[in-house]
Amino acid sequence: MRIGIGQINPTVGDIPGNTAVIVRLIDEARAAGCELVVFPELAVPGYSPLDLLWQPDFVPACESAVNTICKASHGIGVLVGSVTAQPSRDPTNHDNVSSVSDGGGTALYDCAYLLENQSVIARVDKLHLPTYDVDSERRYYTPGAGAEVHRFRDLRMGINICEDIWIDDGPTDVQASLGAEWIVNLSASPFYRGKPEIRRQLVARRASENGIPVLYANLVGGQDGIIFDGGSFAVDREGQVRFRAPAFEDGLFLFDTTLVAADVACSGDDLSQVRQAIVLGIRDYLRKNGFTSVIVALSGGIDSALVTALAVDAVGANAVTTVYMPSIHSSPESGEDASACAAALGVEHMDISIDAVYAALQAAMPTAPEGIVDENLQPRVRGTVLMALANQRNALALCPANKSEAAVGYNTLYGDTVGAIAPIVDLYKADVYAMARMYSDRIPERILTKPPSAELRPDQTDQDDLPSYDVLDPIVREAVENHRTYQQLVKMGYDKATVRDVLDRIRRSEYKRAQLPPGIKVTPKAFGIGRRMPITNRFRSE
Amino acid sequence: MRIGIGQINPTVGDIPGNTAVIVRLIDEARAAGCELVVFPELAVPGYSPLDLLWQPDFVPACESAVNTICKASHGIGVLVGSVTAQPSRDPTNHDNVSSVSDGGGTALYDCAYLLENQSVIARVDKLHLPTYDVDSERRYYTPGAGAEVHRFRDLRMGINICEDIWIDDGPTDVQASLGAEWIVNLSASPFYRGKPEIRRQLVARRASENGIPVLYANLVGGQDGIIFDGGSFAVDREGQVRFRAPAFEDGLFLFDTTLVAADVACSGDDLSQVRQAIVLGIRDYLRKNGFTSVIVALSGGIDSALVTALAVDAVGANAVTTVYMPSIHSSPESGEDASACAAALGVEHMDISIDAVYAALQAAMPTAPEGIVDENLQPRVRGTVLMALANQRNALALCPANKSEAAVGYNTLYGDTVGAIAPIVDLYKADVYAMARMYSDRIPERILTKPPSAELRPDQTDQDDLPSYDVLDPIVREAVENHRTYQQLVKMGYDKATVRDVLDRIRRSEYKRAQLPPGIKVTPKAFGIGRRMPITNRFRSE
Repeated sequence: MRIGIGQINPTVGDIPGNTAVIVRLIDEARAAGCELVVFPELAVPGYSPLDLLWQPDFVPACESAVNTICKASHGIGVLVGSVTAQPSRDPTNHDNVSSVSDGGGTALYDCAYLLENQSVIARVDKLHLPTYDVDSERRYYTPGAGAEVHRFRDLRMGINICEDIWIDDGPTDVQASLGAEWIVNLSASPFYRGKPEIRRQLVARRASENGIPVLYANLVGGQDGIIFDGGSFAVDREGQVRFRAPAFEDGLFLFDTTLVAADVACSGDDLSQVRQAIVLGIRDYLRKNGFTSVIVALSGGIDSALVTALAVDAVGANAVTTVYMPSIHSSPESGEDASACAAALGVEHMDISIDAVYAALQAAMPTAPEGIVDENLQPRVRGTVLMALANQRNALALCPANKSEAAVGYNTLYGDTVGAIAPIVDLYKADVYAMARMYSDRIPERILTKPPSAELRPDQTDQDDLPSYDVLDPIVREAVENHRTYQQLVKMGYDKATVRDVLDRIRRSEYKRAQLPPGIKVTPKAFGIGRRMPITNRFRSE
Repeated sequence: MRIGIGQINPTVGDIPGNTAVIVRLIDEARAAGCELVVFPELAVPGYSPLDLLWQPDFVPACESAVNTICKASHGIGVLVGSVTAQPSRDPTNHDNVSSVSDGGGTALYDCAYLLENQSVIARVDKLHLPTYDVDSERRYYTPGAGAEVHRFRDLRMGINICEDIWIDDGPTDVQASLGAEWIVNLSASPFYRGKPEIRRQLVARRASENGIPVLYANLVGGQDGIIFDGGSFAVDREGQVRFRAPAFEDGLFLFDTTLVAADVACSGDDLSQVRQAIVLGIRDYLRKNGFTSVIVALSGGIDSALVTALAVDAVGANAVTTVYMPSIHSSPESGEDASACAAALGVEHMDISIDAVYAALQAAMPTAPEGIVDENLQPRVRGTVLMALANQRNALALCPANKSEAAVGYNTLYGDTVGAIAPIVDLYKADVYAMARMYSDRIPERILTKPPSAELRPDQTDQDDLPSYDVLDPIVREAVENHRTYQQLVKMGYDKATVRDVLDRIRRSEYKRAQLPPGIKVTPKAFGIGRRMPITNRFRSE
């Protein structure tokens, strides 16, 4: 059977727009001889609508869109992810009911509709609702009643949704034991570095353990910093990949259940996938919010250079402006590097001294600012100028924060943290360097090699204020991504005083991260909605 | 039986500190002749530890604290809320396991320990886990196995936790039918306006329907803008309130199960409770984060005047500084009003003109700033000066945003939105006026009566840019708190174009609210963690 995978890039809440794309791809799939076309989880509303689900006209609009899609299913099967409201099986259980919703005994399900010839053949509800990291599905949905097998034409399919295939001895195994010939999984699986290979291994294991081929259809696109990377694929009953759709691209991709293709390799090393994820994240944030251009404060350092290069990839050099804003503490090399970088990237570049404003601020203060107070004035002036330029051009400012500095609060709130989105805030400094080297044709060599400095006081370098990044990065990674305790870190061989210092800095800068722009998630544990730490917190790992 | 209620104000993560308070109150209760002392939900870790629960040394530290508390239980019963990790009953269910935790088949429970004479008599697990609004308990916890009754001395108690008592035909009813003589509920119930009376009605109904008296023990204190208001109380089997501990105050409060007291009224009208909640929220945010003083940018308008008055109540006039930062668009009356207000409130007051900085910024811009771009420069300069003053004094800046302006984005990000906490961001403008009138002895009459203005251009008033607040406030309230759709709002009689405009403004300013400081929640639906809307969102209620 020829199957089309509608690997679409929906916009959250754009139900008419998403529906139009789905209907168009149904027509294309029919014209291409497909018997079935599969769209990922929540293709209709986009992933995730979050509290929009509690707006009384939102789910009905999705139901109405499914009707429209159903009408387009003449002569072809359509499997599409959406949401539905159904009478609650347990009206006394308020756990999934908003305290202020109508509470009228309805339950929401994250579901897949199987449609054909203007009829609903089946509705399949998601059984396992991830409520960790960025996901909060138990906030909204009720789990489905149980795993089933559905017949479509001569194919017995075990249809399940995203998390359902991750569960050992779960729905996939039940469906295989019930006689399914294929597993079809509809996913909206957030990207992080290495995730495509983790998914491949998982799906291959499900297939080989049950002796059943699996189609894994994944969403694509960026949503407020969560990236869905597409790369839908199919494995045979031995778990060999026999089909793979492109990563980070939307479109209709065809394969055949006879799986005649040779084993397909996963392309791209990890870091180039991360680069693609960030580029897609910037592009989609702009496009889906109605913006076309960005502005970056180019300091002459590596973070802003990389953000600019990524922005050029995302929206084109013509849509990117950079501005260099020196103070008396900026070195001449920084200005040269910023200009050279902007020129090599082909973007409009401005040079605006902040000295007069900085001096006026110093003079305005009743007590002369000293030390960190004085240092902070400079990035805040730059933030103000950057936002004014962004407002004048209807451009979005990009924040150059990286994960190492965000972890320890080595930035100035309302200064270098301003922006609509923080593209590299989930990249450790070492990864910033590695990714910048991918742009070594356009990012000047000196930017790639000079010691990092905030240039807020004479002769400052980051390493005057912080442990060196080759020490800092792994401690932050272990503490944040792997929840390592003080004792565990010390046992791993890190210096006691450094571990203490870094853990304290992470805890003390929670308040800053609470006011950062959304970042693009590329690790298993990014700061932001996937990591919910109290600001007021006296717990000290000892 | 005499029972002590340890209505404590724990600090999240301060497990040794919370434990010390608990042990001290156990001793006080014993000395006062109590047979039992009851502490609220999560008294040991504080509410809510959020992702701290996934730190491998956090729950063990709580378990160890319960051991310490147990050792202090000689001759007295202790009922105390904590968390516990137990072997998972269903190791294949990953729904409540962090994707990066050790995943070792353990499950977390929000629980109550009943202790006496150095022994654990019982552990009671929470059954219903709220996962809506500010709560995300399904992210962390597994529900307990079922409702039981426990005997303590000659009393058969149905012990349950917070949400469990809110469920119709739920644990309370089961426990009554199992022969409980008293229901004892341990709560950490977030405050909002009117909540104390909602709780009283709920508990009275449970009592009278089951013919059983109920003790409701509630936490007190502020945690990142969520306020627990205390006010623990007991009702007799007819639902009459026979005992009530003070609201917004911590301490040990005693009552007797013979309930000899007369019916007790709930004191305080709604708005004065809201005022107390905000004062406690400011005070606790400072205290628990190690700060003692605040600074407020006093504009001469009503919002900052009210925030200053609340701050004086929270931390005392000596710990409050105000600063008036006029630009050329500021009226002389504003400066007079700011000075008069500061003087009446007895706080240190500064006057810092931003004109030179503002002019330097205008001059620094390659293209002269106009309109909204020019207007935004002024609050951003003020934000920069305010943060510098705060840094110099080790004070926290308070953000004066209110709910009406936050809803429609009528503020300048990184300008008048800066601060550590936004005390009145959940108050509509009408409530700002009403609460400010409570301070009419110290807030000058002109501040209470003049038309609101941002004073960012000549002769500006809020009503040049916004619908009048008596129109705006109810639309925002209906849209945000009651999830009303466009059609519903129009049917309620609001003008179509105004509804359209307000709904669009709410949606378009999601990105600003994502970068606001935490606010103090005083309504059923506050902006912030209790309302999770996508920034990228094309859903338009029609």
